[in-house]
Amino acid sequence: MKNNSKYEAFKLHLQKVADITFSGAVLGWDQQVYMPKNGAAFRGQQMATLQALAHEIFVDSKFGDLLQELSTDDTLGESEQLNVKLVTKDYLRKKKYPNSFVQEHARVCADAFSGWQEARAKNDFSLFEPTLKKIVELKRVEAKFLGYTEHPYEALLEDYEPGLTVKKIDEVFDEVKAELFPFIKQLTGKVRPASEFLHKHYAKDKQWNFSEKMVKQMGYDFDSGRADYAPHPFCTTFAPGDVRITIRVDENHFNQMFFAAVHEAGHGLYELGLNQATQYGLPLGQALSLAFHESQSRLWENNIARSHSYWKANFKTLQVAFPENLGTVKMEDFYKAVNRVEPSFIRVEADELTYHAHIYIRYLTEKSLIDGSIEVSDVPKFWNDRYEDYLGIRPPSDSQGCLQDVHWSYGSFGYFPTYSFGSFYAAQLCAQMKKDLPNFINDVESGSMAPLLKWLHDKVHVHGRRYTSSELLTRITGSELKFNYFMDYVREKYGKIYGIH
Amino acid sequence: MKNNSKYEAFKLHLQKVADITFSGAVLGWDQQVYMPKNGAAFRGQQMATLQALAHEIFVDSKFGDLLQELSTDDTLGESEQLNVKLVTKDYLRKKKYPNSFVQEHARVCADAFSGWQEARAKNDFSLFEPTLKKIVELKRVEAKFLGYTEHPYEALLEDYEPGLTVKKIDEVFDEVKAELFPFIKQLTGKVRPASEFLHKHYAKDKQWNFSEKMVKQMGYDFDSGRADYAPHPFCTTFAPGDVRITIRVDENHFNQMFFAAVHEAGHGLYELGLNQATQYGLPLGQALSLAFHESQSRLWENNIARSHSYWKANFKTLQVAFPENLGTVKMEDFYKAVNRVEPSFIRVEADELTYHAHIYIRYLTEKSLIDGSIEVSDVPKFWNDRYEDYLGIRPPSDSQGCLQDVHWSYGSFGYFPTYSFGSFYAAQLCAQMKKDLPNFINDVESGSMAPLLKWLHDKVHVHGRRYTSSELLTRITGSELKFNYFMDYVREKYGKIYGIH
Repeated sequence: MKNNSKYEAFKLHLQKVADITFSGAVLGWDQQVYMPKNGAAFRGQQMATLQALAHEIFVDSKFGDLLQELSTDDTLGESEQLNVKLVTKDYLRKKKYPNSFVQEHARVCADAFSGWQEARAKNDFSLFEPTLKKIVELKRVEAKFLGYTEHPYEALLEDYEPGLTVKKIDEVFDEVKAELFPFIKQLTGKVRPASEFLHKHYAKDKQWNFSEKMVKQMGYDFDSGRADYAPHPFCTTFAPGDVRITIRVDENHFNQMFFAAVHEAGHGLYELGLNQATQYGLPLGQALSLAFHESQSRLWENNIARSHSYWKANFKTLQVAFPENLGTVKMEDFYKAVNRVEPSFIRVEADELTYHAHIYIRYLTEKSLIDGSIEVSDVPKFWNDRYEDYLGIRPPSDSQGCLQDVHWSYGSFGYFPTYSFGSFYAAQLCAQMKKDLPNFINDVESGSMAPLLKWLHDKVHVHGRRYTSSELLTRITGSELKFNYFMDYVREKYGKIYGIH
Repeated sequence: MKNNSKYEAFKLHLQKVADITFSGAVLGWDQQVYMPKNGAAFRGQQMATLQALAHEIFVDSKFGDLLQELSTDDTLGESEQLNVKLVTKDYLRKKKYPNSFVQEHARVCADAFSGWQEARAKNDFSLFEPTLKKIVELKRVEAKFLGYTEHPYEALLEDYEPGLTVKKIDEVFDEVKAELFPFIKQLTGKVRPASEFLHKHYAKDKQWNFSEKMVKQMGYDFDSGRADYAPHPFCTTFAPGDVRITIRVDENHFNQMFFAAVHEAGHGLYELGLNQATQYGLPLGQALSLAFHESQSRLWENNIARSHSYWKANFKTLQVAFPENLGTVKMEDFYKAVNRVEPSFIRVEADELTYHAHIYIRYLTEKSLIDGSIEVSDVPKFWNDRYEDYLGIRPPSDSQGCLQDVHWSYGSFGYFPTYSFGSFYAAQLCAQMKKDLPNFINDVESGSMAPLLKWLHDKVHVHGRRYTSSELLTRITGSELKFNYFMDYVREKYGKIYGIH
């Protein structure tokens, strides 16, 4: 492609939007990580201003004209055409948002977070109920003006996993119900692996020393990132060479910091693997979808860091760090303990199997709220009944039930299914990776993760938004999402651990 | 004042500008404090985008129309009228900047910082010379389009100390030369106080524990701020309840962290004392000038924390923290040591007397560059000659000479005089404070700083930009700046320390 001044203007415009969006991310990170208490009062407003500016600049009608001109410009190269096509899709979607809606949404959600926090702390759903009602009403309106084919929930899903349909989710969860849930029941009939040594005292700094080593072993580069303590673990990008993770610690439970650090570093490796520097602000430098993002974090967290081979490589290092807790524990027993399956109330503490029941229940709740088959006041009962149906336990309080997750207070509806789809993508990807890398087991058993990262990089990371999720999965594995990859993985791994054949 | 929709629109517009400007401050802080190495590549661009946006929005011509309408609106209260008047002044000044100049300035300065860093590291002025030439040319152009009465340098001074003239600076420095410099000569003929105990090993964490205690004693509230390590100490504001300082440490020199922490906390107390919450983004919630800002930091650093009474209150605490270094040191000797006067090459390490020679030399250099009486290539010799004239020492290298300060690489010309004026304001304010607070000495000697902070708050902080520096000084002390306050303070204090009467 020759130098094209219109395409240059297109890039500059999107770089400006990226500059503002990434600035907002810095403010969001600081809010969670270092902001002193009294800084809270104005931070929300400052972040909302940046968000509104980015939106306003992005949907500028002159930019719309430029997109139209570029869409018929046949001097553009293939990648440039694709960037224009994807940005046009985003533009048309964002254009549908009336300014009044954007402002109202920001206004309602600005108050919602603290309202939700208070309700959860006081275990009183009624404190959050009026706000949640407003949010659900806004979301129903949003689904209408965004438009959809089959189900209003699909209009919202589009933000998290483009192209995903309610029909597809229902199909996949029908399999989950038919295969995974009965398998979990089988396991819960067995004696659970002992895990009391995971609950001894694990000193914070030593935990981080170990986690840092493991995260570096994955290939996460601390010249292009860092880790800071925050109330919730997350990964955030400020620039192509600045992708950070946050961690938290429970000194009486080994799992909490370690597996979350690996998870977030998995997100970080995806971000760092994107062509963000040459495609700054452009779709080909952006992650494909939240579900694909989650496939990366979960592949590292579960398929790798909860594997037998992984602990064969790394258990000795951990033993040396915590001889008083693990000196006499056998690697096999440790491996079983970190894979203990047990129904529980809190999603973020769930094992990798029962986790999907949590997601299914949230999905059912969200879908029913959006299509109007339930109202906000019905949520606690609806929620608790389904925990009883699918996990055989009834939450003793809303704090341990429908108030546990933050997402709705941000106005996030449609996000949860990506957590399960990420796991299912991960299983399918990992099966292919094992085929493609003949030394896979040897590599993992010797702590040599570079070939794994290279495979993920070449197969997934570099493509940005070039393909849809289905296209990319098919390109890599030969087929669209198939749930049986996950079940095969589960049956083999947990069958061995629990002695089921 | 009744609810006035035009004034509300005025406020909203300025709040938006403030949101963007404060966001830029968060990015700037993170750049210095936590950003990983590879984050550097895009951070400058992101900050430049926010700066350009804030400028663009501020000088919007519709906002100019609104200012014009409000300027004749007699339903406004007195404070509102004043805000409109001060913003109009800022608006007319900012409007003078051609877009092309703003972009060129940002472009040149984006590269200048790393160029300056390299030149200083390699002790090679020629590496920075071409860039500095471009910057000086830009500054000469800037002075022209901004306009001035007597001297082009005044156009640039306006950003740092509105209304300050070259004539005034020259008058004040004539007194400095006539009174302070001969007094310094007198001192340097005497035996200098011993200070080797300040250069023993002071462990980093213990240094901060002590500094933190002292900063809290001043009234700095860690719920509205925090301290982080950075290559250079500074104070930065993100919101009314979020004013942070940075610190650095030399484990072999006690002075470096402690006095800088007190200095930056002095800035912080001014920011926290402003009516920023009710006047967010408005002149009445902003600091009066950089010189007045510096009066606050220097009053705490020198007039208080380098005073005899201060160490009477706090030396024991310090001794307990560092018994191995100070256990046998007498308070009187410690007090003399932290007030040791000695000509040196590096401004930021200078004592409170020779410091003003450093400033005078920079002022002469800047003024001469801007009015064209010297060129950039003349700077090293011009600089070194004046160090010989005023301090009796000749810098052995440009790294210890004209390359030592960062300011020019940012395009900052006109900033340096505020450092001296800040000290002189501080002496005049402190003399008045002592008169107004009959228990001043008792309070300081018992570590009770609240009455001092209240005095500064009521007399200085709350007014924001309501008065000019001269008006405010006159209001508080009965006269405009008089240099003899500083000389009286110096003669009394150092006369005693050095036995001169």
